Parts: sequence; C-alpha cells; structure tokens
Amino acid sequence: MSDIVVFSGSAHRSLAEEICSHLGIALSRSETTRFSNDCLQVQLLANCRQRDVYIVQPLVPPTQDHLMELLLMVDAARGASAASVTVVIPHYAYARSDKKDASRISIGGKLVADLLATAGVGRVVTMTLHAPQVHGFFSVPVDHLTALGELADHYRAQDLSNAIVVSPDFGNAKTASQFARLLGLPVAAGSKQRKADDKVVIDTIVGDVAGKRAIVLDDEIATGGSIIELMDKLKEFGVTEASVACTHGLFAGKAVERLRSHPAITEVVTTDTVPAPADWPELKIRSVAPLFAEAIARIHAGESVSSLFDGVDPAHAPPQPKLPL
Amino acid sequence: MSDIVVFSGSAHRSLAEEICSHLGIALSRSETTRFSNDCLQVQLLANCRQRDVYIVQPLVPPTQDHLMELLLMVDAARGASAASVTVVIPHYAYARSDKKDASRISIGGKLVADLLATAGVGRVVTMTLHAPQVHGFFSVPVDHLTALGELADHYRAQDLSNAIVVSPDFGNAKTASQFARLLGLPVAAGSKQRKADDKVVIDTIVGDVAGKRAIVLDDEIATGGSIIELMDKLKEFGVTEASVACTHGLFAGKAVERLRSHPAITEVVTTDTVPAPADWPELKIRSVAPLFAEAIARIHAGESVSSLFDGVDPAHAPPQPKLPL
Amino acid sequence: MSDIVVFSGSAHRSLAEEICSHLGIALSRSETTRFSNDCLQVQLLANCRQRDVYIVQPLVPPTQDHLMELLLMVDAARGASAASVTVVIPHYAYARSDKKDASRISIGGKLVADLLATAGVGRVVTMTLHAPQVHGFFSVPVDHLTALGELADHYRAQDLSNAIVVSPDFGNAKTASQFARLLGLPVAAGSKQRKADDKVVIDTIVGDVAGKRAIVLDDEIATGGSIIELMDKLKEFGVTEASVACTHGLFAGKAVERLRSHPAITEVVTTDTVPAPADWPELKIRSVAPLFAEAIARIHAGESVSSLFDGVDPAHAPPQPKLPL
Amino acid sequence: MSDIVVFSGSAHRSLAEEICSHLGIALSRSETTRFSNDCLQVQLLANCRQRDVYIVQPLVPPTQDHLMELLLMVDAARGASAASVTVVIPHYAYARSDKKDASRISIGGKLVADLLATAGVGRVVTMTLHAPQVHGFFSVPVDHLTALGELADHYRAQDLSNAIVVSPDFGNAKTASQFARLLGLPVAAGSKQRKADDKVVIDTIVGDVAGKRAIVLDDEIATGGSIIELMDKLKEFGVTEASVACTHGLFAGKAVERLRSHPAITEVVTTDTVPAPADWPELKIRSVAPLFAEAIARIHAGESVSSLFDGVDPAHAPPQPKLPL
Amino acid sequence: MSDIVVFSGSAHRSLAEEICSHLGIALSRSETTRFSNDCLQVQLLANCRQRDVYIVQPLVPPTQDHLMELLLMVDAARGASAASVTVVIPHYAYARSDKKDASRISIGGKLVADLLATAGVGRVVTMTLHAPQVHGFFSVPVDHLTALGELADHYRAQDLSNAIVVSPDFGNAKTASQFARLLGLPVAAGSKQRKADDKVVIDTIVGDVAGKRAIVLDDEIATGGSIIELMDKLKEFGVTEASVACTHGLFAGKAVERLRSHPAITEVVTTDTVPAPADWPELKIRSVAPLFAEAIARIHAGESVSSLFDGVDPAHAPPQPKLPL
Amino acid sequence: MSDIVVFSGSAHRSLAEEICSHLGIALSRSETTRFSNDCLQVQLLANCRQRDVYIVQPLVPPTQDHLMELLLMVDAARGASAASVTVVIPHYAYARSDKKDASRISIGGKLVADLLATAGVGRVVTMTLHAPQVHGFFSVPVDHLTALGELADHYRAQDLSNAIVVSPDFGNAKTASQFARLLGLPVAAGSKQRKADDKVVIDTIVGDVAGKRAIVLDDEIATGGSIIELMDKLKEFGVTEASVACTHGLFAGKAVERLRSHPAITEVVTTDTVPAPADWPELKIRSVAPLFAEAIARIHAGESVSSLFDGVDPAHAPPQPKLPL
Repeated sequence: MSDIVVFSGSAHRSLAEEICSHLGIALSRSETTRFSNDCLQVQLLANCRQRDVYIVQPLVPPTQDHLMELLLMVDAARGASAASVTVVIPHYAYARSDKKDASRISIGGKLVADLLATAGVGRVVTMTLHAPQVHGFFSVPVDHLTALGELADHYRAQDLSNAIVVSPDFGNAKTASQFARLLGLPVAAGSKQRKADDKVVIDTIVGDVAGKRAIVLDDEIATGGSIIELMDKLKEFGVTEASVACTHGLFAGKAVERLRSHPAITEVVTTDTVPAPADWPELKIRSVAPLFAEAIARIHAGESVSSLFDGVDPAHAPPQPKLPL
Repeated sequence: MSDIVVFSGSAHRSLAEEICSHLGIALSRSETTRFSNDCLQVQLLANCRQRDVYIVQPLVPPTQDHLMELLLMVDAARGASAASVTVVIPHYAYARSDKKDASRISIGGKLVADLLATAGVGRVVTMTLHAPQVHGFFSVPVDHLTALGELADHYRAQDLSNAIVVSPDFGNAKTASQFARLLGLPVAAGSKQRKADDKVVIDTIVGDVAGKRAIVLDDEIATGGSIIELMDKLKEFGVTEASVACTHGLFAGKAVERLRSHPAITEVVTTDTVPAPADWPELKIRSVAPLFAEAIARIHAGESVSSLFDGVDPAHAPPQPKLPL
Repeated sequence: MSDIVVFSGSAHRSLAEEICSHLGIALSRSETTRFSNDCLQVQLLANCRQRDVYIVQPLVPPTQDHLMELLLMVDAARGASAASVTVVIPHYAYARSDKKDASRISIGGKLVADLLATAGVGRVVTMTLHAPQVHGFFSVPVDHLTALGELADHYRAQDLSNAIVVSPDFGNAKTASQFARLLGLPVAAGSKQRKADDKVVIDTIVGDVAGKRAIVLDDEIATGGSIIELMDKLKEFGVTEASVACTHGLFAGKAVERLRSHPAITEVVTTDTVPAPADWPELKIRSVAPLFAEAIARIHAGESVSSLFDGVDPAHAPPQPKLPL
Repeated sequence: MSDIVVFSGSAHRSLAEEICSHLGIALSRSETTRFSNDCLQVQLLANCRQRDVYIVQPLVPPTQDHLMELLLMVDAARGASAASVTVVIPHYAYARSDKKDASRISIGGKLVADLLATAGVGRVVTMTLHAPQVHGFFSVPVDHLTALGELADHYRAQDLSNAIVVSPDFGNAKTASQFARLLGLPVAAGSKQRKADDKVVIDTIVGDVAGKRAIVLDDEIATGGSIIELMDKLKEFGVTEASVACTHGLFAGKAVERLRSHPAITEVVTTDTVPAPADWPELKIRSVAPLFAEAIARIHAGESVSSLFDGVDPAHAPPQPKLPL
Repeated sequence: MSDIVVFSGSAHRSLAEEICSHLGIALSRSETTRFSNDCLQVQLLANCRQRDVYIVQPLVPPTQDHLMELLLMVDAARGASAASVTVVIPHYAYARSDKKDASRISIGGKLVADLLATAGVGRVVTMTLHAPQVHGFFSVPVDHLTALGELADHYRAQDLSNAIVVSPDFGNAKTASQFARLLGLPVAAGSKQRKADDKVVIDTIVGDVAGKRAIVLDDEIATGGSIIELMDKLKEFGVTEASVACTHGLFAGKAVERLRSHPAITEVVTTDTVPAPADWPELKIRSVAPLFAEAIARIHAGESVSSLFDGVDPAHAPPQPKLPL
Repeated sequence: MSDIVVFSGSAHRSLAEEICSHLGIALSRSETTRFSNDCLQVQLLANCRQRDVYIVQPLVPPTQDHLMELLLMVDAARGASAASVTVVIPHYAYARSDKKDASRISIGGKLVADLLATAGVGRVVTMTLHAPQVHGFFSVPVDHLTALGELADHYRAQDLSNAIVVSPDFGNAKTASQFARLLGLPVAAGSKQRKADDKVVIDTIVGDVAGKRAIVLDDEIATGGSIIELMDKLKEFGVTEASVACTHGLFAGKAVERLRSHPAITEVVTTDTVPAPADWPELKIRSVAPLFAEAIARIHAGESVSSLFDGVDPAHAPPQPKLPL
C-alpha cells in the first residue's frame, strides 16, 4: 500500500492520523500559510506524482477557511501530477443547503460539489449526508458511509429491554427505523408543526413511548435546541430518561451546556467525524476512523465498499422498488 | 410576444395547445419520424433563429421514446440557432430515481438532467418534483411550479368543516401540512413499516382522523396501490369517506379500476400535467395550463415567477433557517 | 484477465455471452427494473471498483429503451468507481442520422455520441458505421471493427468463377469494391434516381452483370425494400440469382417474408451484431463474437486492434492521400 | 444594422469587403503582427462590446497561419466582450480530413471544429463542406450554404440542349444529380478504381455521354489532376468539349496551366470562396459575397437562412426518409 | 438603465452604494445567513430574471468568507435566471498566488478564477491586478481598470518641482515609470537582495534621489514593512520626506501605526477598493467608485471601456511589439 | 520502461532523438503529410494503446505549422487510445503573449494552452517560460524545467574572478540574481526607458560594472537587437568584454551576423531547446536533452521532478512568503 499518500487539512488532524494508523502508513506533511491579506496558500510536502492522494477534511468551523484550504490542497495535488485525488469529508456540512426552499437562494450543497470538481477532485468519501439526494449533486463517484453500525454497537452492550428509538422529526424517521431494526427495538418520532413564519415546535410524539427509555437518534446536533425541545415533549408523553446519539456532534453555541446539564439525558453518544468539544469528558465518542481506513483500503485494492455495510445499511443491498413494478 | 416559439412533443399535445391558447399564440408544428430501425428523427417546422424556443413534453409512457424525442427536439432547436431553449416538463418522472439507495444503481434523475443539458437545454420549467433536492441535479436554471393552489381551489368550493388532510406517508407530510394550512385544516399521515425485504405496509395513522372526512394528498399516483392500502387503514381508524388529490395522475395498471370502484373514495382530483386516462369521466381535472402559460409569459417578460405563488408556496418566499442561527 | 467485467443490456444477451465465452470469463449479472411510470433503473450486480467495465448493447428495437438502459448502465458503472467504461455497440443504429439534409432537423448520430460521453463512456467499440465520418462524432476513442473478412470467409468456400459483387447504390460502392478485392471479383452498383420528392428508384446498373451470379453487399438491411428493387433491376440486366450479404441484419417489417420468398435470392448471409429473426432457419449467420472478444482482449492487453484487420480493411493500414500531395 | 461588426483575416480581404458592401457597412480594421519568433498577435481596432462580431476567413494556404490568425481573432473578440462571435469560413479546407481511414491518424476536420469552439466561436457560416457529415463535427450551430444556385445561373444563360452534367466520381454524384435537376439535364459519373496502393484511376464513365457537351461539376479543384484524367476518359467515351465548374477553386500547383491549356476545356467556372489565381483572366468567377451577406443579414434579423435556398438545395427543405418508415 | 441590478456582498457595502449612486440606481438588497454550523446561505431580494446582475465584493479579510459569499451570490443569481452575472472585484487579493515558485504549491489566483467561472460568473471587472498575466487566468472576459489616473490627480494639485517617483522594487517599476510619465517626473527604484532563505532586504536605490521629495508608489500595502524599509534606504540616499501612494490600502497588522508615525512620511494616499482602516483620519482616500460606475455604464451601453483610460494606461492603447518584428 | 512511446514533430527531431538515446529507447516513427490545399495530416506509426505517449516539439518557425502538427499528433494519440499524452515543448514561444497590454488583443499564451488541452494533452513538460505566471494558463499539470544549472556549469569551468552577471532589463533581473548566486557573482541590470511610443532604449546600467567582464543572461534571444544595445551601454559604463548566455537561442533575422561579429562579445552560449543556426560553428551549445530525459524518466517512475533542481532553482524548494505573514 506504498503508493497511497494521505494529507490532512487543519480541520481535524487527529482523525487523519488515526485513519493513517489503521492503514499502517504515516500521515504526509503539508503546510498551510496565511498571508497578511488573509489569503491561504498550501504546499504539499510529500511526492504526489503517480500516487493516489487522499485529503481528509471535515467542513467544520471556520467552515469557509477549511473549505478553501481543502480546495487549495486538491489544486496542489493535481498540479503535482497525482494519479487521483480523493477527498475524505467525514462531515459535509453544506449538505443542508440542498434545495431551493425560497426565491433566489443559493443551493450551497450543489455549489460546493461543483467547486470540488473544478479544483480537481476525482472521488469523494463521506458519511451520513443530511439528505441522500445530495449524493446526486456530485458528478464524481461518492462513497457514502454510514455510522449506524458503529452507534448500534454502543447500545448492544446495554440492556435494551425497555428502550425505544426516537427520531426528532419525520425527516430522519426512515434512518431511525433502520437503526431500530438493527437493535430489534420499536420506533417513534416527533411531529413538528410550524407555529409562525419563524417558529417550529414539536407538537406531538408519534408512537407509544410512555414509560420507556428513549434512544434519540439524529444525524447532526448543532445547538441542541431541537433535542431539548424533544426532551420536554418526551417527558410529557411519559419518558423519564433518554440516551442521545448522533453521527455529527457539532455541539455549537450552548449545546454542551444544554445537553450536559439536562436532567433526563443520561448520556450523549457521537462519532469523531468532527473534533470533539474540549470540555466534555463524559461525551461518548465512537471512532469512525477504522471505517474510513477500511473504505480507503478497499478503494485502493479495488474491493467492494458496499459489502462493508452488509446487514447494516440497506442502501448497500439490492435495490427496493420505489414504485410498484 | 412574437418571438416566442412553442413546440410540443408527442406526449401531451393538448396541454401544449392549451398553454399556447393562454399565451395567445399558435403552437408551432414539428414532425417526428420513426424509421424502420426504430430510430427517431425530428424536424421543427417553424423558424427558430433568434427565438426563445419552448418545448412541452411530460415524461409519460412510453417514457424513453418521449425523452429521446425531447432530446432530439432540443438538439434541432439549438442547431437551428434558437436564442434559448427551455423545456417545459410538467411531470419529470425520473425524479423518483434520486438517490443511491442500493449498491451500483443508476441515479436516473441526475443522469436525465445531465442529458438534457448536453442536448442544449438552457432552462427547465417543471412542476412538483418528487423530492425538492432534485432541483439541485440541474446545472441550468429551473422554475419549479406547484399545483397546490390549483388543487386547493377545488376544495375551497366544498364544505370543509369536518375534513382533515392526510398524507400517505411521512415523506410527503411537509407538503400535506402546507396544503392543510392553505385550507385551514388539520393534518394526519400514514406511517409505513417495512415488513420484509420486499414488503412495505402502512401500520398506523398519525393524527386524529376518527369520524372525519379525509382529503388524501399525494404528489403522484401510479398504480394506486398505496392509496388503496391507506384507505383500508383510514377506515380502520374511523374515516368513512375520502377525496383523493394528486398533482401527477398517471393511473397506470389497474389504478383506474381500483380507485373508481373503491366504495369510500368519493372523488379523485388531479391536474393535466399528464394525459388523462381515456375511460374515467368522473375524474376531476384541474388544468395547470394557465399556470405554465403565466410562467412562460413572466419568464419572457423578465418578471418574477416566484410572486406567482405568493401565499401558496413558502418555497417562493423569504428563506426559513434550517439550522438555528 | 481477471479485472475485466462485462455486462450486457437486454438487447442481445446471447452475443454478450458468446463474447465472454471467447474471453474465457463469465458475463456479470445486472438487473434492469421498469417502474410503473415506465422509468428504468439499473443495478450492476458485480463489483466494478477499479475494473475495466465493458457493456454490450446494440441499438436495436425498442431502440430508445435499449439506449436509455445503456446510458443508465454506464452511469451506474461510473458511479461504482469503474476504472474505465467501454460500450460495445455492435450496431450503432443512430449513425444513419448523420447530417443536416433538411432544415431544423436533429443529427441523432451526433447527439447520441454526446449523450454517451455525458453518461461516462470512455471508449466505444463498434462495427461498420453507416458512414465512416460518424467516427468523428465521438469525442472519445472509437475502435471501429469491420465484418468484411468474416463475410468474405463465407464466400471463399464457394465457387466464385462467375460471381460479381454488387452494391445497391453508390454510397456503399467503396466498401463493395473492397469486398470484391478480397474475393478477387469484379464489382457493379445500382444507380438511384429520385423520381419525385418522396420516391427513389434504381434506374440502372453500373457495371457488366449480364449472365453473372450476384453477391449483393449492403451494410444494413431493414425492410429489405431496396434489395428487392435491386433484384428486379438485376434481373432486367441479366442476373438470374443472387446471394445477399449484410453486416447488420435487422429484417424489420416484412423483410423476412420478402427476402425468404424471393425466387432469385439463393441465400441471405449476415452477422450477429443484432439478434436474428426468430422464424428464419435458413438465414446464414456468421458470428462476430470472436472479433469483438479479440478486440476487447487486445484493448485490455494494450495491443494493436488495427493489426486484427491487416489485409482486410485498408482503413487499418497506412493512410492514402485524399488530395494529391 | 449598426451593431454588426465584421472583421477580415488576411486570407481573403476582398471577399470580406464585398460582403460588407452588400451589407451596407464598413469592414472594421484589425492588425495582425508577426513577431520575430514567428508567433502571431491580433488586435481588433473596433469596439466589439455587446456587438455581434463576424470574422471572415477561408482556410487557404498558408493554411496554418490563416487558421491561427482566425483563432486569435476569435479569442480577441471574446475577450473584448463581443455579444456573439460568428466565423464565416467560405472554404473549410480541413473538411477533407473527416474520417479515420488509416490506423492512428488525426481527424483534422473534427479537431479544427473543436479548436474553434475552444477559442470562443458561437456559430459557423460556411459553404459546400466536402462531406455533409462534417456539419456534425461542430458543437455550435452551422449555417451551411450552397453555391449550386449561383453556378446554375451561369449555365442558364447558355444553350444547354446537348449538355450533360458529369461528376468526377460517385462521392460527388448526389450533388451532381441535384445540379442536373436544377438545369433540367441528365447526369453521368466517372467510376474510380484503385489500381495499386498508391494509384487511383477513372476506369469508366457511368451514363451515356457520347456526343454530348459535358458540364463537369466538383466541389473543389486543387491540382486539377483528376479533372484532367476525367477529361481523357470523357474524350474516349465521345465527349468533345467540356465546361468545368467547382465551388472552391484552389488551383494549386500546376492546376492553372493544366486546365487553361487543355484543348477540350472550353471554360472553367468557380466562385470567390477562395482568392482567385493571379494569372488567369479567362477564369469565370461567380461571386458568393451576396449569398454570405444575405445569410449574415438574415442571421442578424432572425430570419430563416434555409428559405434562401428554396428550390435549390433539398437540404433546406423538409426531410426525406433515409430508411423506409 | 432600468435592467441593471447591483448587489453587494458584505465586504464593502459603502463602495457598492457609492457606485450605485453614480449610476443613479438603488443598490438591491440581499441577505446572507450564517448557520450554526458556520455554513453561509445567500438570498437575493430583487428580481434578477433577464437582468444584467452586478455583484460588488473585494476579497478582503475575512477573505474566505467573502469569497464564499460571493460564489453563493453568483450561484443564486444564475439560478434566478439572470441574463448575465458580472462580479466587480475591486481588489482581487488572490492574484498574488500567481505562479508555482515552490514544489507542489497551489496557484490560488488561477483556482479562484476557475471557481468563479464554475459558480456562473460571465464577466469580471477588477482593478490593478498584482501581475498583468493574472488576466489570462480567467476564461471569461475581464475589464481590468487602473487607478493611476485617479492617484495622479491627487499629485497634480501639488508642487512637483523637486519630486521623483520611487518604486519599492523592480517588479513594480514599469507601472511607476508610467505614473512618472503622467506627472512629468523622473523615476527611481529600490533594488531587493535576498540575504538568506527567509530574508529580503533593499540594498540600494537605483536612480538619483538625493535631495528630492519621493512619491513612493506601490500596488498594494499590507503590513507596510517593505515601505518602512524603503524609507530607511531612501533617507540614507538623501531623501528627507516622502508621500506614499497605493491602489489597494489593506493596512494590515501594524501598518497604520507604522506608516502614520513615520517621521519622513508626509502623507499616505490610497483608494477605496478596500474599506479604510477605522482610525486614520489623515489617510487620503481617492474614490474609484466613479470609475467603476462609468465602466459598468459603458459595459451596459456597449461602449468602449478602454477609451476611459486614453492617455492614462497604454494597456488600453494600440499594442507595442514585445519582440522586434 | 517499455511502455513509453516517444514521437517527434518535425520541428527538432535531433533533440527528440537525443532524449530517446538518454532514455535508452528508440524514437517512434510518425508521418506528417501536407496536402495540396496545405492542410496537414499525421499518422503515428507505433502502437499507442495503453502507452504513455510523449510528443517532442518546440514552437519554432514555421511556428503555426509546428503547432498544428503537434495538435494533430496529440489528436491522433488520443484517438489511438493512449493511456496518457504528454507534450514536451522545450520552447513555448507563445508564452510572450501573456497579458492584455493593449485593447482587444489576443492572449496567445493562454489560447494555445487551451488548444492543447482541447486536442487531448494531459501534461506539459517545458523549459524557462517567459513569465512564470504562464504556468497558470494551463489547466493540466506542467513540469517547468530550468536550464540555469546547465548554463552555470559552462561558466564554472572559467575564471570568474572579475565577472559580473548582467540582466538586459529588470524583468529578467530575478532570474539573473539566481544565476549569479549559483556562480557566487554580483549582478547588474540594464534599465529601459521608453523614449517615444515606439522606441525603448537602455538608458543606464544599475550596478557597478566598470572594469568587469560581463556575463549577460537572457531567457531568449531573437534578433539580438537588445543585446547589441546593451553591449553599447555596457561599454560606456566600462565593460570591455562579455559572454552572452540564453536558454532559447532563436537567432532570427540578422542575429547571427550581429552577435558573431560584435567585437566585445567573446562567446555566445545557449542550449538546444531550439535547433541551432546552421552557420555558426563557434556557438556554444549545452544540451538539455539529458534534463528532459531525466524528467520523463522520473515522471514515468513516479519520482519527484522537483528534486532534480535542488540547489539550482528555488522554485523547486519550499515556498517563500510573498506577503509578510
């Protein structure tokens, strides 16, 4: 596996190092310079010629700087005659801008996909896109991984006899059902109602949660506001405690304080697609570095990445008709 | 408005004619030839030079023939020096292939968007895409219209005092909520459960429907199978009759027979984005030709198309934050 | 040769199987689904990652469905990280739409070439394009094979002492001359005259055919109409019997009946670039599967494909000046 | 018509001036500089901003210099914010490189079409391409004019009672038939036979020419070699005198001497798509400047260019099926 | 001029307002939202359909945010069917990354040019690129303005009898000569020497500056370090006071303090291509808003922008041979 | 190294042969045909399939013919299924057209870069571009070599105790400084002044050259005019003799006569990036064939090309900040 070269942007170097450690290779060095006019410049400090170059960078704050650093690294790798350039974006934050739900707005998820292609990206490896359709925004092949199996492993070690999987809204309900099936549990979901132009509330819980322990699953937690709101509603419907799980644990703003201090939340489980908050020792972090390392190894060896998720994610199984035949 | 030229493929000529009638212009002639090797050839029989050309063609069965005819018409218009080529695709059927939910499958919705761009399409006018993200598959501007206002007008003439809007599943629930808000009604939704690898059933109804009259809303009805299943479940939950509404009324296979003869379905309402089934006189069809004509007129005059949907579709209003600020 | 993966669309699976058999590999499985809205979806059931993928599909009726299936297979292979995607199109039917011989018509041969490139095709292997210029419609490399050697082998086993090669028209005369040279025979051609706007007739035969046995050679036979007309004229000029040969034996409409029952036609010889008509046991079919298999093997091994046709097709020899130097 | 700007490369300035004169506008100035390293640089000396720019340049010797000058002019016009850039290439010489008739050769006709698009060409106006398929090499709209009507006008003034139109080979026979139809004359053609790898001879004349006056029609005459050979064969078949006509009169090498001194050639008629030889006062030149001017005027006014050739060229009429329906 | 729509990013709104004021139109509103995951979203609040859209945004710190905001605005304008999208980037900061002066580094100036094109930019209006070759990085037309005339006007009001124009280095010497010619003054330049790998010093002054008043001209001042160093050397060579002028006054880090307090610097003159530092009342700012407004007006009216700089910038005059002819 | 195939255009076959000799392989044959209409056609006479193809061609007079021949060779290689196509352009003459220094001129350096990409070039290997920014005109990877080390070797064999490196102008001064550092010598430069619109003179020498022996270094010598002028000025400043060195020795027009007969020029040293003048036996030519061969070998082996210039060219070392950090 000597002809893989892995670089890391400055967003999450420890994840890149862990991926390399699983691959049994050293992370290659690069240098990002910020000039006095705030422009960035990147130099890759390892030979890229005829190599398969992988660049690891989740799109976390400061998001624009990390995106531009990534684009410059791709540009440098292509200019240095890399055989191929793959970006490993564990958290593709711009996926949330995925549709035109207002007049004359940008669709950032599509634009960033196009910018990456322009810079020279030949393949994308990512995890848990906010909507599965975002896959189609890319004109290059995408390996779309899931952390569901990893999160499920966390709960398999627990007594699940009285548990139920809860999705904060209908949008994530399909994934929650899948997760529940992995654990052999029932599923429930919060139902959101728009109260005013700028206000959305969870007005009911669909599914029988009374007296149960909730496993709340979301793809991404940012400020934690909707989780807190869900907790209030769950309490109202008879849930007394909950474990909260998500793939992308951003924990922006007051999220750490809110979630850490909530009396009904017994634990918060997430992965390391993004850097962990500094001040939260009890946060349970499941590393997805082995998954990314295995995906890279299989890509390099020309083996199926799908089979990595056999039994976990039906999106890697034979297709299910979406319309009656 | 003399420099607009409108052509129709063979999929739905009467809609094209009605659009032209609202625009106050004549539909231009074209000729599609099928050779003995089954290849198609198109000739446009009106001058396209420096004209804004519009080609009307929903993607209805035989879908591949209609798609190829459309691509050939676009190619001919571009080759004939059209100033711009806009395709009006009232029903973009390939929108259902919008994600990679199985290994190594095609994403037809993205591919067809790319094929259209290759043929020379400069703008797309369409209605009610299966998922709003499909908008982002197109690299050219898309005017995405909605028939909700038109369908709502149908119900505004009725006594709605005991009615409730019902979505067959969670995927369509957001649109159903919007529709309910237009009519001042409550909303409910079917909850689907996957029973086996090849079997999906509606296992419950979320929302209080007992004793109510249901207005079932879906974006598209093909074989009608899931509507029938929903009816059974609604009956179980205390609904005795229902009006069924959809934007794209394909009514394939046994749909006409099933829906027409169902004792609890009092009426079926749809639009003319696709040709109506021949043998269903009671089917209530609301024409969207005026909407398409008005959109074309505004595009041509450089006026806002968004404002056409003020108060109907929030996707044409100022944006609502999807993440807390 | 383990890293070649060959798939077949549904147009001509037996040819694909025979090609694979000559390559000593198994044809890989794929599944094409037709939804109730008539849209197609393809899933490739073998790992494509880092493989050289070949997809076999002649463009035969229903041509648009076969074309779209092919485009979807290419899209799926590209999305599944194939190292390269080659389409093997033994009969590229759209080659007949190769010029703008009327106002505002589509040039289907160029459009389909562009659509294939958009879907992700990296190379095309085809046979006997209707006009050699169609090669230039493709922006990707094309390996353009010929069946002339194969057809010539059929006649080499016969007594050719009194035979003459006849081209139905001047357009195909150059190829007929080449074929005649391979067999050491003289050549003649029908001369077409346009009688009215919609009527073309063969008004004379150029070359001395009296008392000879004709070997009529065409690139493609569709309805067989022009062959029948040629036979009448040949009879008038003293020919009493003929063998008819073509590369692409479509035999559409009444072709089988017409050709099979014609008193002066002693045999019809064709290849298997397209599926044979079901009900014509005497039709002599020379398989070109070995040629396609050998071409694929050479492409894969990086060997010259041209040399496969040494002495058969001067288009694979050093160039001949088209203008005096 | 004030917003058309016409420039001329250095290949054929007098034609450009004549076209401008028919348009009633002045030819705009430009300056081409040749540096001491033989590189060219172009400056356009008229404002191009928001103008429709037309650049006139046939590809005549020194062909590469004229091609590069044209590409640089297009680049300069685009960079100067032209609204559109149309190249008027009365003689597209590279059209003869239109197929891969030998291993590993370039297809110059396609390459040059792509180079023009890269430089920024948005439309091509040309005349009598060597093969009609070359039209399909361009990805931008092409207006393909014909000089047949102009050449026919020359003969309409003559006594044609004993004349016959003769094509030097089968390749041009279809055009010759069309020309004959315009004049109400019969048609004949030379039949070429390849004698050796490097030798092609006309071995017979198809059609009854004995005792007739021949009107020999070719698309392009370069060295005149094949015309002279045809004359010998025509004489053998009983023709005593001939008028020779072609669209593109290159008259390279010894062509002037050969044709001018041939005893049986009574006149040579051509057009001014390329500059006339300096020393041939009897050469009859029909100007196509009015045709190009009219085409430009119609393009600018958004009128049909096809109708300019009603009754002259069926390629501008409704399409004729190429395969039985 | 009703169909121009001008938007401003958040980098320098006051400049955009002043440009609009000179154009006699109102600046259109837009809204940039920053989500909790730090992603940006843009909504344009004025109709763009069929309008010529101009977006004003210099690339000043935070540079990456301003660049991404600009790209999103372009994307939104294109998606909203703008007739054309022009970006007005008064300071294109990434121009300094213009070459590969080290192994495997990014060329940011080229990359950003490509990103802009991908987002949908159709034209760029900018001022004083760091190197004139950067113009060639763009594939779309660029209108490259100069502030030399504006800066010269400042000095024309002064007594220049004892003044000399000084360039800090040879790289800018050509522009300094041009500026000197505008003022009728002599010119001198600092000569830089690289002392160690990371240290560049000005080791001498080329040209006779003794006893003179220096007018130091640079394209951009960032930290002011090299200006201070130049001042020391100028003092050594007999200059006692200096006026410092630049087009792009970034004044980053300690620049304000350094320049403001330097005893020999009598004044600093700059333009408003970037926002002025908050705390420097004596800074003399010449507005280039009228120049940008005039350029936009001429672009819109299809008039020459070059002529705006007649007598100021030879780059807008006839070309001067760079190699002997 | 068996799968490299090297072809040569007709510009400088002996260089290509020497490169091949250093690589230990044979130069492959190709044939360029010029037709009577002056169009070129190329046939490659070695199998390119799956090979890495290199084509050697400096852009020397007749420049347009050599450029077109190169483009056709690239097109033929791509069409022949080459795995990759690299052009080796030792002298990229169009690099001098690198900016828009006048209204509405072409930027030939960018245009030719785009034309090469269109033809199918995947990588460029070149030497000493006129301006380093030209690197950024290419969208494909460029390996930019330098001859400075080779030229320095020439002088290392000489007594340099009294020598000084002199650049003819400031534009080349940075490279001259680098060269001086390699030799441990001081540096001086000519200062050009524009006297009139069409006249540039060297008005002074910057640096102390009195009594010294000059080593004049330029990137390219065309007519030699500015070198002669520099010699006059150097003489005036006390230099009595000079050695003249350049990378690209074009020696056009009267250059040979001028330089050879100049009394103060003791020798002229150049490389073989372009063919040497026929009649100048004393010209000292340092071959760069070994450098190009080594670069090709490293590219093929996936080794760093940068390290080939360690200690010679800082552009192949870690980056130096261009703006203070």
